[in-house]
Amino acid sequence: MENDEPEVIFQPSGRRGRVARGATVMEASRSLGVGIEALCGGHQICGKCRVLVESGRFDKYGIESARENAGPWHEAEGEHISPEEKAAGYRLACAARVTGDLVIYVPEESRPGRQVVSKEARPIDIDCDPAVQIYPVTVGEASLSEPTADLERVLLALEGTHGVTGLTIDIHALRGLQQCLRQGQRTLTVSVWMDREIVRVQPGVVPAHYGLAVDVGTTTLAGYLCDLKTGAVVATASSMNPQIQFGEDVISRIDYHLNHSDGLARLNEAVIGGLNRIIEKAVAQSEAVLGSGGIRCEDIVDVSICGNTTMHHLLLGLDPEPLGAIPFAPANQAGLCTRAREMGLRVHPTARVYLLPNESGFVGGDNVGVMLVEEPHNSPDTVLIVDIGTNGELVLGNHDRRICSTCSCATGPALEGAQIEFGMRAAPGAIERVQVAADSLAVDYKVVGRDKWRSQSNPEEMMAKGICGSGIVDAVAAFLKAGIVDRTGAFVPDIQTGRLRQNEEAGMLEFVVARSEETAIGRDVTISQADIRQVQLAKAAIYTGCKLMLQRTNLERPDRIQIAGAFGNHLDPLAAMVLGMFPDCPLDRVSAIGNAAGDGCRIALLDRKKRVEADRIARSVEYVELTLMEDFQEQLIEAIHMPHMSDPFPHLAGILPADARNE
Amino acid sequence: MENDEPEVIFQPSGRRGRVARGATVMEASRSLGVGIEALCGGHQICGKCRVLVESGRFDKYGIESARENAGPWHEAEGEHISPEEKAAGYRLACAARVTGDLVIYVPEESRPGRQVVSKEARPIDIDCDPAVQIYPVTVGEASLSEPTADLERVLLALEGTHGVTGLTIDIHALRGLQQCLRQGQRTLTVSVWMDREIVRVQPGVVPAHYGLAVDVGTTTLAGYLCDLKTGAVVATASSMNPQIQFGEDVISRIDYHLNHSDGLARLNEAVIGGLNRIIEKAVAQSEAVLGSGGIRCEDIVDVSICGNTTMHHLLLGLDPEPLGAIPFAPANQAGLCTRAREMGLRVHPTARVYLLPNESGFVGGDNVGVMLVEEPHNSPDTVLIVDIGTNGELVLGNHDRRICSTCSCATGPALEGAQIEFGMRAAPGAIERVQVAADSLAVDYKVVGRDKWRSQSNPEEMMAKGICGSGIVDAVAAFLKAGIVDRTGAFVPDIQTGRLRQNEEAGMLEFVVARSEETAIGRDVTISQADIRQVQLAKAAIYTGCKLMLQRTNLERPDRIQIAGAFGNHLDPLAAMVLGMFPDCPLDRVSAIGNAAGDGCRIALLDRKKRVEADRIARSVEYVELTLMEDFQEQLIEAIHMPHMSDPFPHLAGILPADARNE
Repeated sequence: MENDEPEVIFQPSGRRGRVARGATVMEASRSLGVGIEALCGGHQICGKCRVLVESGRFDKYGIESARENAGPWHEAEGEHISPEEKAAGYRLACAARVTGDLVIYVPEESRPGRQVVSKEARPIDIDCDPAVQIYPVTVGEASLSEPTADLERVLLALEGTHGVTGLTIDIHALRGLQQCLRQGQRTLTVSVWMDREIVRVQPGVVPAHYGLAVDVGTTTLAGYLCDLKTGAVVATASSMNPQIQFGEDVISRIDYHLNHSDGLARLNEAVIGGLNRIIEKAVAQSEAVLGSGGIRCEDIVDVSICGNTTMHHLLLGLDPEPLGAIPFAPANQAGLCTRAREMGLRVHPTARVYLLPNESGFVGGDNVGVMLVEEPHNSPDTVLIVDIGTNGELVLGNHDRRICSTCSCATGPALEGAQIEFGMRAAPGAIERVQVAADSLAVDYKVVGRDKWRSQSNPEEMMAKGICGSGIVDAVAAFLKAGIVDRTGAFVPDIQTGRLRQNEEAGMLEFVVARSEETAIGRDVTISQADIRQVQLAKAAIYTGCKLMLQRTNLERPDRIQIAGAFGNHLDPLAAMVLGMFPDCPLDRVSAIGNAAGDGCRIALLDRKKRVEADRIARSVEYVELTLMEDFQEQLIEAIHMPHMSDPFPHLAGILPADARNE
Repeated sequence: MENDEPEVIFQPSGRRGRVARGATVMEASRSLGVGIEALCGGHQICGKCRVLVESGRFDKYGIESARENAGPWHEAEGEHISPEEKAAGYRLACAARVTGDLVIYVPEESRPGRQVVSKEARPIDIDCDPAVQIYPVTVGEASLSEPTADLERVLLALEGTHGVTGLTIDIHALRGLQQCLRQGQRTLTVSVWMDREIVRVQPGVVPAHYGLAVDVGTTTLAGYLCDLKTGAVVATASSMNPQIQFGEDVISRIDYHLNHSDGLARLNEAVIGGLNRIIEKAVAQSEAVLGSGGIRCEDIVDVSICGNTTMHHLLLGLDPEPLGAIPFAPANQAGLCTRAREMGLRVHPTARVYLLPNESGFVGGDNVGVMLVEEPHNSPDTVLIVDIGTNGELVLGNHDRRICSTCSCATGPALEGAQIEFGMRAAPGAIERVQVAADSLAVDYKVVGRDKWRSQSNPEEMMAKGICGSGIVDAVAAFLKAGIVDRTGAFVPDIQTGRLRQNEEAGMLEFVVARSEETAIGRDVTISQADIRQVQLAKAAIYTGCKLMLQRTNLERPDRIQIAGAFGNHLDPLAAMVLGMFPDCPLDRVSAIGNAAGDGCRIALLDRKKRVEADRIARSVEYVELTLMEDFQEQLIEAIHMPHMSDPFPHLAGILPADARNE
């Protein structure tokens, strides 16, 4: 690799490398294993490969990206890129050429295949008592002798038929009332918010109404379109959080705000735009479930949102700066109701948005959502809930007491992001499972989007592109069990396998998981010594958080461990236990619970009583700042060993040798 | 007058006439006594004479107006008229020429001098308990051990200092909270709506806050900017209701909506635009009272509005069509609270707008406002309240029972509008008082904007332009007392005065009130036989309404008569009694009460308890449809006589001869 070759970094994947000067951005992306859509084969025809050329100094990566480093503009690009977009830095990847260092952002729509965001809705037991209720009524006629106003006749009918009284009306509903009475021949369906305000009127008897719950993650937005009457999930839609272009984790988003006068506005617009696309997607899907055209955006009459505190602030346009500085006080804590329109969400004009409460400056409504589902406050058992998303949030407790905290590192990016050479998100082609045979050290693996394992497939069919978080955790656990790495995480150099080799350029050992002929990128997919260190650091951060919380509550081990979050859902709990990611616990009491934050958000959408409970939960959980505990650093270092330098893991008996279990 | 001279009608005054083909619109306006501002003397320099050339068929007037009838466009006009305005039909009056029939609308800003809208605020006794209250608080500091959120610390301080609990917060207030705490060093002033919601936060201790009460009349908008703490009126601002371009009375506005698909939207935009200009005017005036820059529009945190039912519907964007058809049911009756922003009003983004309740499809919140001030429901005496605006509204009753109705004609336009040859609104130059000496029949008069009467002035100084409603009522009463007209309203032809003459062209007698040398229009200002008929018709409509209401309640006469409305305020109660505009009553118990609707609107702004009372008042008043009463027509005809054909007026003893009093 010559130093005069320009360096290119692709976001959001974080893939980086040097490429031949003059290569197209498309060629660069391929050489670095970054997928960019190219329906026309890179001939500047289809316009599917639009990318954003970032401009400015990227200290984190040590490079400076400039728009002119992407070569001259081609007329054909103008067919697909508006002047505004051009000014913002958009190019076609097949037309732009690498003439200097570049940071390239690949928008979601330009990525091949949809990311498999495992945020499907779990079946959960919900008492359907939504904030917005619908009442069909038939209204009396006005007469010359009783020329009662339209609204007053509707109120009389609501009281007579449903016993609902004391209602006000939103001006939008009032504006539609006259026509609605005419069209429905005095029969109409009235939507009432919180037994207080008429928010919608529709002619005739309308049997169903809809709401949307959205888990706003740092990386992923996951929306659940729900039937408010039955609680059924009509459609789920997810996408990347468009804020990712401003930074992978919450700290970098806050930094973006601090360094740009319009930072807050841009971060806010990005996520609101993302939510509006989620809404459109969910609505578009609704036809398949509901038939006859499905529903429209304005049929969504209530919205609930959960997110971490930074997402909460950026969503509402609140300054996130105080979240990054002592005393870390958020703008607000209790659950909040505002109008969808005030936030810029394109749903029914009168729809409210309920935001789950924050627990502290660090732990937000997503964690409250997790607790709404898992109900540690109702549990006699002590449960440890680990929510592994971009950040890691921890809750430990039972019906007597609950404490919460956050992990000391951005766990998601550490396992999938730029620090892992072939790291990628769980998109098609990502190696998500790895096994190593104890005796032969034969490697088997599975990629996202393909049911059959490597051992059952023709190698060329695997088309592996990289490794996602669950894959690397699986791999390192397998390496440890097979003796390929030792407890310190070091490769054992004299192991008998042709897959372990020295990477001369990087100056370190690496293990070949998939050979180049099995990949879509024409190169071996490997896990290097440095990658293993990253995994160790991430797992040590999670473990140390869990352990310090146990210490804080004078417990040796939790009765149960629940692994939440999209990443947690992909994770093999056993592999994570083998690595020592979590404290010792009976293995049959360790389980993945999926996107519990999203489930809790759905609960808050569907059952307004849970909103009161959410505030109570948020107030009753105690935040502990782990990094301020005196032996934090020491603990972290001990936890880098696998599963741990000294803590015993009796429940790993039969899986790890006794000396590794520290018994 | 030759028939090939084009006809020009000026709105909103309704002045019409034929003018020489090729005359400028400015010249035409002068020849017809219509004022258009012309600072530069009509040299296409100042741009102050912008007028709107209407296009279309005006059946009411029997003419068709077309933009091309205003002659070719001059380049100089482009200096003052934007391309959009040009497309809308704007021209400079000094440049446009009359080449065919024209209907010209003179916008208020192009009229010389401000109309004297006598809607000054009366001192009224108000208990200041506004919907929005302000609370200064000093908030505790967040610490690492107690990192309570900003909002929660504010709520704690509000509870501790003021005992206010259970508040929510508007998102706009929340967005400003963090900065406000910083700027005020943790001391801030919190505005709370209805003890329910924080709607504004300001750094430091802010002693005052403001609200706006607006009486939305068919013809006039009158706004009162009030200090919500003291109740003081800081500024009053009034203007024509811009809807007047779509018709003078409510019926013609409803017609406009029925005949134009965008009619409702245009009527709504017009009045909202007018209200925003009222807001700007009031705010601009506030500096003179408050000093140091006065207040800004966003310092207005609450708004109350009253208007008749048509104004109510058009303000809210509700379909007014049902108001014109059996069973005349309005869209809503009870008082309504909505957001200023939802209506398009440019005040504080969280400001609410309270609209006073409607009584029926015909009697609206303006009448409720009148009753809030006059409190007939608390009166042992039976009071007759006559609100003479563009329409006439009547209330009769006491603490036991109250009925309301409307007059059967648009009283304001009948006395000031197009039907009166020299009729004009009470703007400078309008003759507002007329006296005729009993013996010499010498005429004296007074014009708006000039303190001295004609008899005390140099005739050339009078500069009379026309006659407003109070002037014509005064004049006809004086004619009756002096024997110039008889009780049927006919001029007595053999009366000894040179002022009575035959108008050959019109084929009727007319009386010269001001000779051409005393006018600004170079012509005599006269009152014709036809004008007197108009006055008789209007007064008969009012009288008949009053009398039928008395009959309905089996009363002979009211104990008191209160004359409300801007027009009522100009009116000399004695002159009106002499004409027989109102039923017999002790003269010292007849009084003008000014813009009582506006006063009631102020009360509702300043005292939220009155909003509850307003609903009670509106529900407890009984609407009676007078035109459906069987002897309505007969009564109307009898009432055309002055003061009446048969009803006795004993209280006019000493003023009218006994035979005229029907004793």
